[in-house]
Amino acid sequence: MHISDIIEILIDFRNRREWKKYHTPKNLALSVAIEVGELLEMFQWKKDDEILKELENEDYRRRIGEEISDVLIYLLLLAHECEIDVEKALMDKIKKNEQKYPER
Amino acid sequence: MHISDIIEILIDFRNRREWKKYHTPKNLALSVAIEVGELLEMFQWKKDDEILKELENEDYRRRIGEEISDVLIYLLLLAHECEIDVEKALMDKIKKNEQKYPER
Amino acid sequence: MHISDIIEILIDFRNRREWKKYHTPKNLALSVAIEVGELLEMFQWKKDDEILKELENEDYRRRIGEEISDVLIYLLLLAHECEIDVEKALMDKIKKNEQKYPER
Amino acid sequence: MHISDIIEILIDFRNRREWKKYHTPKNLALSVAIEVGELLEMFQWKKDDEILKELENEDYRRRIGEEISDVLIYLLLLAHECEIDVEKALMDKIKKNEQKYPER
Repeated sequence: MHISDIIEILIDFRNRREWKKYHTPKNLALSVAIEVGELLEMFQWKKDDEILKELENEDYRRRIGEEISDVLIYLLLLAHECEIDVEKALMDKIKKNEQKYPER
Repeated sequence: MHISDIIEILIDFRNRREWKKYHTPKNLALSVAIEVGELLEMFQWKKDDEILKELENEDYRRRIGEEISDVLIYLLLLAHECEIDVEKALMDKIKKNEQKYPER
Repeated sequence: MHISDIIEILIDFRNRREWKKYHTPKNLALSVAIEVGELLEMFQWKKDDEILKELENEDYRRRIGEEISDVLIYLLLLAHECEIDVEKALMDKIKKNEQKYPER
Repeated sequence: MHISDIIEILIDFRNRREWKKYHTPKNLALSVAIEVGELLEMFQWKKDDEILKELENEDYRRRIGEEISDVLIYLLLLAHECEIDVEKALMDKIKKNEQKYPER
C-alpha cells in the first residue's frame, strides 16, 4: 500500500467519528508516546534470545503487530496534521543519514 | 511509495553498514522510544495555538518531519525483524478499531 | 522520607521475590519508559483546564499518584543497579542547571 | 535527603525563574517522557554485559546520573502541581504491590 492511501483511510476513519477536534499535534505526539510504551511492554524483562524464541509464536507476533500499528496510526495522523509530506520527509532523512554514515 | 519499498531501502541501507547485528527487536523498540522522545521535544512547553502558528514556519515542519522519519525508520525495521507484515497488521488493526468504535 | 530509605524498601521487596536477575540497567530503563507511557495516558486527549478540573477528583489524583510511583520505583532501582548516588546526582544536576539558567 | 526537601528546592528554583506558567501537569508529564528518551539513549545498542563493563567508568555513571536526575526533577514537579503527596503515593503503591505479588 501507498503511505498516502493509508493516511486517507485514517483521516476518513477519524472524521466519521468526529475526533478531529482532539487531534492537535501535541495530543497526537503524546498518543504516539503512549502507544510506544505499550509496544515496549511486549519486550519487558525478556532477553534477546527469549524474544526470538517467542516470535515463533503467531499470537505474540500478532500482538506486536497491533502495537506497531497503533504507533504508526498516530504517527501518520501527526504528520498529516502538521501538513508534512511523510514520504518526502522520510526520503530526505534517509539521504541525510547516507551522508552522515557513509559506507565503509 | 509502497511501505514494502521503503522497508527494502531501509534494509539495504542497514546491511551496507553491517548494522544488522545491533538490530534485535528489543534494541529497535528502545530506539523507537528514544526517537519519540526527540519528537516530543518539538512540542515541549508550547501551547496548541503556538504550535499551529510555528507550523507555518517551513524549518519547524522540516525538523518535525525528521523526527517523525526517525521513529518511522526504527518502527519499520522492528516490524521487519519480527517478520511482521506491517501493512496487514495495520489493516487488521483498523478493522478492529472500526468494531471497537462504531460510527454513531 | 529519605530517598535512601525508600531505595532500601524497594531492594528488600525485590530481593524477597528473587527479581534481581531481571533488573539489569537496560531492563529497568525500559520499565521506566513503559510506566511513563501509562503516566502520559492520564493526560491523553485532555486540555490543561480539563486536567485542572479533574484534579479536584481524589480518585484521579490517586491514579496519577500510582503511575508517578511506578516510574519512581524503577528509576530508583535503576540508580541503585548503576551504583549511582541519586541524591548526589540530583544536587549536582540542580547546581549545573543554576549555572545554565542564571536568575534574571 | 527528604523528598519533601528536594521538592522545595525544585519549586524555589522554578519560581525564581518564573517558569511556573509553563508547568502544567500535561507539560511536565511530556517533559518526563522527553528526559526518559535521553536516559534510554545511555543504553542504546549496548548489551547487558557491555553496560556493566561501561558502568565501571565514572563518567558514564555521571551521565546516567544526570539523566535520572532530569526525569526525577520533572516527576517531582508533576506530583507537586497535581497536589499529590508523592511519599504517601509511593508507600501506598508498594503496599498494593505487596498484595499483588505475595512472597512465595
